Amino acid sequence: MDSLTAAVYLPPLDNPHERAAIGHELAAVLHDLVALSLTGKQLHWMAAGPLSHSLHLQLDELVDSWRAMADTVAERAVTIGHTVDGQPAAVAAGTGLTPIAPDEVQDNLLVHEVTHRVATVAERVRARLRRVGEVDLVSQDVLIGVTRELEKQQWQLRVQSGAHR
Amino acid sequence: MDSLTAAVYLPPLDNPHERAAIGHELAAVLHDLVALSLTGKQLHWMAAGPLSHSLHLQLDELVDSWRAMADTVAERAVTIGHTVDGQPAAVAAGTGLTPIAPDEVQDNLLVHEVTHRVATVAERVRARLRRVGEVDLVSQDVLIGVTRELEKQQWQLRVQSGAHR
Amino acid sequence: MDSLTAAVYLPPLDNPHERAAIGHELAAVLHDLVALSLTGKQLHWMAAGPLSHSLHLQLDELVDSWRAMADTVAERAVTIGHTVDGQPAAVAAGTGLTPIAPDEVQDNLLVHEVTHRVATVAERVRARLRRVGEVDLVSQDVLIGVTRELEKQQWQLRVQSGAHR
Amino acid sequence: MDSLTAAVYLPPLDNPHERAAIGHELAAVLHDLVALSLTGKQLHWMAAGPLSHSLHLQLDELVDSWRAMADTVAERAVTIGHTVDGQPAAVAAGTGLTPIAPDEVQDNLLVHEVTHRVATVAERVRARLRRVGEVDLVSQDVLIGVTRELEKQQWQLRVQSGAHR
Amino acid sequence: MDSLTAAVYLPPLDNPHERAAIGHELAAVLHDLVALSLTGKQLHWMAAGPLSHSLHLQLDELVDSWRAMADTVAERAVTIGHTVDGQPAAVAAGTGLTPIAPDEVQDNLLVHEVTHRVATVAERVRARLRRVGEVDLVSQDVLIGVTRELEKQQWQLRVQSGAHR
Amino acid sequence: MDSLTAAVYLPPLDNPHERAAIGHELAAVLHDLVALSLTGKQLHWMAAGPLSHSLHLQLDELVDSWRAMADTVAERAVTIGHTVDGQPAAVAAGTGLTPIAPDEVQDNLLVHEVTHRVATVAERVRARLRRVGEVDLVSQDVLIGVTRELEKQQWQLRVQSGAHR
Amino acid sequence: MDSLTAAVYLPPLDNPHERAAIGHELAAVLHDLVALSLTGKQLHWMAAGPLSHSLHLQLDELVDSWRAMADTVAERAVTIGHTVDGQPAAVAAGTGLTPIAPDEVQDNLLVHEVTHRVATVAERVRARLRRVGEVDLVSQDVLIGVTRELEKQQWQLRVQSGAHR
Amino acid sequence: MDSLTAAVYLPPLDNPHERAAIGHELAAVLHDLVALSLTGKQLHWMAAGPLSHSLHLQLDELVDSWRAMADTVAERAVTIGHTVDGQPAAVAAGTGLTPIAPDEVQDNLLVHEVTHRVATVAERVRARLRRVGEVDLVSQDVLIGVTRELEKQQWQLRVQSGAHR
Amino acid sequence: MDSLTAAVYLPPLDNPHERAAIGHELAAVLHDLVALSLTGKQLHWMAAGPLSHSLHLQLDELVDSWRAMADTVAERAVTIGHTVDGQPAAVAAGTGLTPIAPDEVQDNLLVHEVTHRVATVAERVRARLRRVGEVDLVSQDVLIGVTRELEKQQWQLRVQSGAHR
Amino acid sequence: MDSLTAAVYLPPLDNPHERAAIGHELAAVLHDLVALSLTGKQLHWMAAGPLSHSLHLQLDELVDSWRAMADTVAERAVTIGHTVDGQPAAVAAGTGLTPIAPDEVQDNLLVHEVTHRVATVAERVRARLRRVGEVDLVSQDVLIGVTRELEKQQWQLRVQSGAHR
Amino acid sequence: MDSLTAAVYLPPLDNPHERAAIGHELAAVLHDLVALSLTGKQLHWMAAGPLSHSLHLQLDELVDSWRAMADTVAERAVTIGHTVDGQPAAVAAGTGLTPIAPDEVQDNLLVHEVTHRVATVAERVRARLRRVGEVDLVSQDVLIGVTRELEKQQWQLRVQSGAHR
Amino acid sequence: MDSLTAAVYLPPLDNPHERAAIGHELAAVLHDLVALSLTGKQLHWMAAGPLSHSLHLQLDELVDSWRAMADTVAERAVTIGHTVDGQPAAVAAGTGLTPIAPDEVQDNLLVHEVTHRVATVAERVRARLRRVGEVDLVSQDVLIGVTRELEKQQWQLRVQSGAHR
Repeated sequence: MDSLTAAVYLPPLDNPHERAAIGHELAAVLHDLVALSLTGKQLHWMAAGPLSHSLHLQLDELVDSWRAMADTVAERAVTIGHTVDGQPAAVAAGTGLTPIAPDEVQDNLLVHEVTHRVATVAERVRARLRRVGEVDLVSQDVLIGVTRELEKQQWQLRVQSGAHR
Repeated sequence: MDSLTAAVYLPPLDNPHERAAIGHELAAVLHDLVALSLTGKQLHWMAAGPLSHSLHLQLDELVDSWRAMADTVAERAVTIGHTVDGQPAAVAAGTGLTPIAPDEVQDNLLVHEVTHRVATVAERVRARLRRVGEVDLVSQDVLIGVTRELEKQQWQLRVQSGAHR
Repeated sequence: MDSLTAAVYLPPLDNPHERAAIGHELAAVLHDLVALSLTGKQLHWMAAGPLSHSLHLQLDELVDSWRAMADTVAERAVTIGHTVDGQPAAVAAGTGLTPIAPDEVQDNLLVHEVTHRVATVAERVRARLRRVGEVDLVSQDVLIGVTRELEKQQWQLRVQSGAHR
Repeated sequence: MDSLTAAVYLPPLDNPHERAAIGHELAAVLHDLVALSLTGKQLHWMAAGPLSHSLHLQLDELVDSWRAMADTVAERAVTIGHTVDGQPAAVAAGTGLTPIAPDEVQDNLLVHEVTHRVATVAERVRARLRRVGEVDLVSQDVLIGVTRELEKQQWQLRVQSGAHR
Repeated sequence: MDSLTAAVYLPPLDNPHERAAIGHELAAVLHDLVALSLTGKQLHWMAAGPLSHSLHLQLDELVDSWRAMADTVAERAVTIGHTVDGQPAAVAAGTGLTPIAPDEVQDNLLVHEVTHRVATVAERVRARLRRVGEVDLVSQDVLIGVTRELEKQQWQLRVQSGAHR
Repeated sequence: MDSLTAAVYLPPLDNPHERAAIGHELAAVLHDLVALSLTGKQLHWMAAGPLSHSLHLQLDELVDSWRAMADTVAERAVTIGHTVDGQPAAVAAGTGLTPIAPDEVQDNLLVHEVTHRVATVAERVRARLRRVGEVDLVSQDVLIGVTRELEKQQWQLRVQSGAHR
Repeated sequence: MDSLTAAVYLPPLDNPHERAAIGHELAAVLHDLVALSLTGKQLHWMAAGPLSHSLHLQLDELVDSWRAMADTVAERAVTIGHTVDGQPAAVAAGTGLTPIAPDEVQDNLLVHEVTHRVATVAERVRARLRRVGEVDLVSQDVLIGVTRELEKQQWQLRVQSGAHR
Repeated sequence: MDSLTAAVYLPPLDNPHERAAIGHELAAVLHDLVALSLTGKQLHWMAAGPLSHSLHLQLDELVDSWRAMADTVAERAVTIGHTVDGQPAAVAAGTGLTPIAPDEVQDNLLVHEVTHRVATVAERVRARLRRVGEVDLVSQDVLIGVTRELEKQQWQLRVQSGAHR
Repeated sequence: MDSLTAAVYLPPLDNPHERAAIGHELAAVLHDLVALSLTGKQLHWMAAGPLSHSLHLQLDELVDSWRAMADTVAERAVTIGHTVDGQPAAVAAGTGLTPIAPDEVQDNLLVHEVTHRVATVAERVRARLRRVGEVDLVSQDVLIGVTRELEKQQWQLRVQSGAHR
Repeated sequence: MDSLTAAVYLPPLDNPHERAAIGHELAAVLHDLVALSLTGKQLHWMAAGPLSHSLHLQLDELVDSWRAMADTVAERAVTIGHTVDGQPAAVAAGTGLTPIAPDEVQDNLLVHEVTHRVATVAERVRARLRRVGEVDLVSQDVLIGVTRELEKQQWQLRVQSGAHR
Repeated sequence: MDSLTAAVYLPPLDNPHERAAIGHELAAVLHDLVALSLTGKQLHWMAAGPLSHSLHLQLDELVDSWRAMADTVAERAVTIGHTVDGQPAAVAAGTGLTPIAPDEVQDNLLVHEVTHRVATVAERVRARLRRVGEVDLVSQDVLIGVTRELEKQQWQLRVQSGAHR
Repeated sequence: MDSLTAAVYLPPLDNPHERAAIGHELAAVLHDLVALSLTGKQLHWMAAGPLSHSLHLQLDELVDSWRAMADTVAERAVTIGHTVDGQPAAVAAGTGLTPIAPDEVQDNLLVHEVTHRVATVAERVRARLRRVGEVDLVSQDVLIGVTRELEKQQWQLRVQSGAHR
């Protein structure tokens, strides 16, 4: 491969330090989002109580959005040349989310558990925005989109859980 | 509620001053957008002249976009913990848009009236972008989207109105 | 314009008194429906409590139906040659609906507030049916459709609010 | 056929005078609507001038609505046991609409020609409403629907033609 | 519940006599329509003869329309505050329709059986129109729609059955 | 009809005893499913309480699935040459389901009533599976599908009703 | 208009004799197709006998295809600069199709009547193909498409009418 | 290829005798289904008589279902490692269906011919169910689905052909 | 049947020699197209190698197009009064295509085999165009469409097979 | 490659002179169509004046049709073995269309500019029809389709531009 | 809860030993399917080589099918009253699938890796079929469906990977 | 035009230097994107080799995305009051992309050629982001979107081309 071609074939962030820095931020977000989607599915199966039917449906919409976000974040990581690992063991090790005991979850508790986790992930992504933007505006744009959607979900869940009443 | 939970349940902007500052910006935009959508509907009913049929259809597309923007802006406000008021009296008091006399509006005048109002609102939103971005990149992203769409509409209306010829 | 053409171009109700009478009935309905749609949107943003998510969705369907009704009523008014005003100030002045305090509204209270307002508007439209029908069967047909839909919504909301238990 | 069956197989209006009366009203409306749809198609092909492209599209929507109305009216006539004739010669003889000279029609004139004919037909249908309703509420309901739609089209065309300016 | 609220929560027909009168009319229509839909399904399974395949499909369309009408009528009844019973025993007791022997039904006989039943129900609904309209124009509007559709079906079935030849 | 043709025209189960045995199993299932669908519709109209709106929607999905199952089961019965009766009187006589008093049903009670009936029908179908499979694997396949869907609905309703807490 | 522009604005066939020749061929086809579509609609309303329901549907498909062909032919005529007249009187005068007596038409006779008319029109269009192709390959392409579709319809109707048995 | 990989790459039925046994059953079904689909298409083109139009449409639905079944059966065969041949010569040799003389087929005869062939194939597939199920439950599931659909088609055709009257 | 009717009921090509000549051309094309579609399905099941998945999908699109062409050609043949035979034995005897050994086919070989057959059929259809066009422009139009599509497929397959490299 | 295969792999026009002749005709059409589509897009952005909004939409439909035509023509060229070049420099060099000054274009002038160019291209394609048809009927069919569509567009634009008034 | 109600509210398998036995089988299948879906997504991001684009798309279809299977299996488990755990740590511990090194995977190797894992899971599910069927025919039906789909995927991947050549 | 109106009608960037600066950045991006889309179409026609079919489809998706980006960028330029030129000669002169020789392109080379060009354009757009953002956040948002999409395409093409292996 001649040098011109080589240069062209390098991913957008060709400074290895920058690439690694951004890549690690994105990988951390990926682990949280995959964990969130598996937890959401778990609660989809375990929901109980009078509101369980509508939570069952609502959780599938949330899970779809988290899977789509995970896809976007993972593809951004490999786009800048950083390898990620979204398999069960890596996700279990990499996420900061605590698992839920595998049992039926009453509806009011369920909303609390989801709100707590969405808020945690939203806060962790938001904390990365300025840092990422200094190096790569495009990756920042990806993460602003993730934050925007998670914070909106957090609002809808927060009012649903009746907190601050 | 224990303190950890409490912290998690706070909306994204937990500094009350920041929250109020961003919230007021968003509320002002909301009032203009709701007023714009009601004015657009009014002109949808009052259009006259040879171009009235196509303006009738064009206005419904514009009204749909303004309603969607208003929804996005209001939901961002409550997402960060700020309460808004989009009811008739509050909108009438809060918007800077002047009403149009309730009568048939000839097509050329109609385009002028809409262009004028879209340009005004676009300019007022654009003026908030830097200020909002210093506090909250996500709200800024919301407002950049609003500005981008309004300015595009302004262009289409501006050339339609034949100004600068 | 020659007299034949003039005659043809007159709107269906060419008796000015009849036109004004029917027009005022329709304009009053319009103000209530626009106010209802803005209030519905407000509650869409302000809903709280365990049922807030499904009320959030239900309100958007109601708002869509109220917007469509307002459109139909306004277009009937201009069809018979009567000018209406659906802008914020005119709506705020013309509607009999009282605004809701701009704050989070718990789900049970929310259903009560909406039911109250839908029932009020339905009752006010129903009271006009016989009077309008004596002058214009077509405008009556428009208002029967509005009443029929509003009363059905009132039933669904009434049983939802648990009243009469 | 025994008498019970015979009774059941009679169409809804089994009084021959009533049936003939309502049937003639419906047949007259049918002839006007078929003539309107052929005239609309003719103008669809003959439109000229800067607005011809959008009139070309608008006329196809009007023609579709007139064809659907004609279908509804004809089916109501045969439902009550009255035979209609919607073939070219019968329509040419039965309609009160005057044909348009077969040549290019400039856009402003075209709108005038269509408005004139829609207004004429709307007025003729409206004049039958009370009379039909005294005999058959269902046929009246059919004609109220036709009138409502034609009068709405008349409004849209009337403001488009710039009359009353 | 305070008196204002109580008033608002009353269904549209707050005169108990009127409510009961209209409610009984609607309940009777409901029983006929549910019986019609079950009979239609029965014939859908039992059709035989060369035309059985197209009758099989045609019956499903009719059944869909009868189910939709039943839904509309039942919801109007509860809207005005009248309770209905659409369960098997109540329908069997309340309908005037005679059941069909549970066996294969040849196509020509099948059309006769359906026509007979549709004509019967249409006639029974039509007989209520004026009476209902004196009390409640909205319920009348519901029943005019039912009559209009049933009479149209009766026409299509009547010509299909070859009667009056 | 010659003997070859006769043989071909026999339905799949040509042993009259086997046909009758399987046919009676399917007919019993049909009566329960039709009764279930009418009861579901009844509750669709009678639902009350804060969850009535979402139960109203959920019941329509359940009713659709029960109607589809009834159709499948009835068509399997006639496929094997067994005649069924799905008309009101036959269903009222043949089902084991007890009717519900025709009055408003509060949401929590409603879920209990539906769960009870779905569980009963599911259990009764499941009890037929081995017996049917010994004679006709295809009819067994039909009933396994019915059981699978009913048991899944029972689970969703069971957790919704909050039992076993 | 300068000569260059004038040349460009001439329609494709700028030889007036050729234009008139092709234009008259197209106008004759148009009259037959419009007459065919009105006759088809007439039979759609007048069909009787056991097959009337499926003929009712089949005729609407045929009418749709004839309307689309008429549109294509008329637009080709004006494309080459020839004016056509598709209004009732012109069609009644210009078509070679004989009208059908306005009364119920039994299914077997109906198929015969339609087949006869489709065959007549197909034959008349086919007779023009070579002549038109010598002057204008594009207009020939339009008429080949019309012939191809009409002849296919003729086949389907011919076998349906049981002729040649 | 190491032995572990080799083992994994063997198809599900790795016992060659079992694979051949099931494979031959599936191949025989495939030949009948492909022959059925070509015969159905032939009759689609050759249908005559008053019902030919609806049979023309009905046959296309049947052909679609037979093509889909053939696809499913062939893919199951190759899934278990058995090669099939669905080309014209192999199908002509392998099927037990007798061809139909290539000429117009009157509608009543046509239904008889199709019923006969569908019944034959259904019977032949049903005869394989128990035998296949002892070796491979999954292939049995495929064939139960084929039998269920064919027997349902046989019922619909059987009643259509008027047999047993 | 009187002579006028008889004439109308003759198919478009009433000269028996011309009809037979064109009919044999179309029948020959039909056999090749049906054989092509069965061969394509065979390869759909037998594809192997790294590209087999996308070839599997590509073949289904080709098979769909060949089935549609066969349908068009067969319907044109019967339209002009010529009977065809598309059943397995007739196709096996009538096509010039050689079968493929029933075994897995590696992807590169598969493309070669398909290209070869598509090119053969395209060439054979093209050779008929002028001859058919002298007698019947409409049948020629059908075959030009077939040739155009087959030659386009041949191009796409030819470049795919890497020939001429 | 053996000779048989070679023969099969040759494109349809294997006479090099014929292939080059047809190929050059197609390439010339391609350059005009690509230029037309880029010019259309340019005017889509540059439209001004009261009609600019509807022209903006109309141009996108035209551009879509020109892109589709270009695709069809290019694919026909490579199908017959002729290589084309549709890149910017080749198009700029090969088209006969003159560019438009890059500035706002008032609506009336815009229609003139487009009509002029469409007429020019249509005329140039039409001039090739007979010549191409002598060598290759399929390529002729492609170009007849292009001419037919362009001439129809020319008509619609011509009447829109008000010429010949 | 009275005893009747209690009995009805028990899940279908009320024998605790049977429930646990079937539940463990389903839970094991769930862990494998969730692991398969995460691995599939990982390879979706890591695919490299000429076929990576189509594998990227193919993997998303596979992942969708594995997610749907996992959902079905988990819901069957809770339907019979058995609790499952589909969160990252539980899946990582419970699956027998070995993870793939987190790096780019060349296309040929990727197909091998997926085939291997699909074959492993298919084999493990198939081994449970008879055992499960002895206790619960409905759960067996669920697992037959999973096996059928996995084995079909295994075939498509097996021929794609070129093994056994 | 009075000064107030004039001010409102100015485009968003009313500083002529800023407008020109941003406008030139956008125009340069436009030229590259139009050139990319024409080159993509060229390769769509010229693709050869085993992967040519899937590249043919993939290129159409890429071309669609590049056309949409070009549209967005051009409309942003005119929105801020800057005139662009997207016609063939201007694009040929303004783009930095080198054309590809007009000949068949083997699949592996094709991916290389596309990757190279996408990488070049992505890099050139990325280089403008900070500079544009200092003047106009909205135009920056447009270009971030373009970069994000192009870099994602570059990744997919890069791994497809097997570089860096």
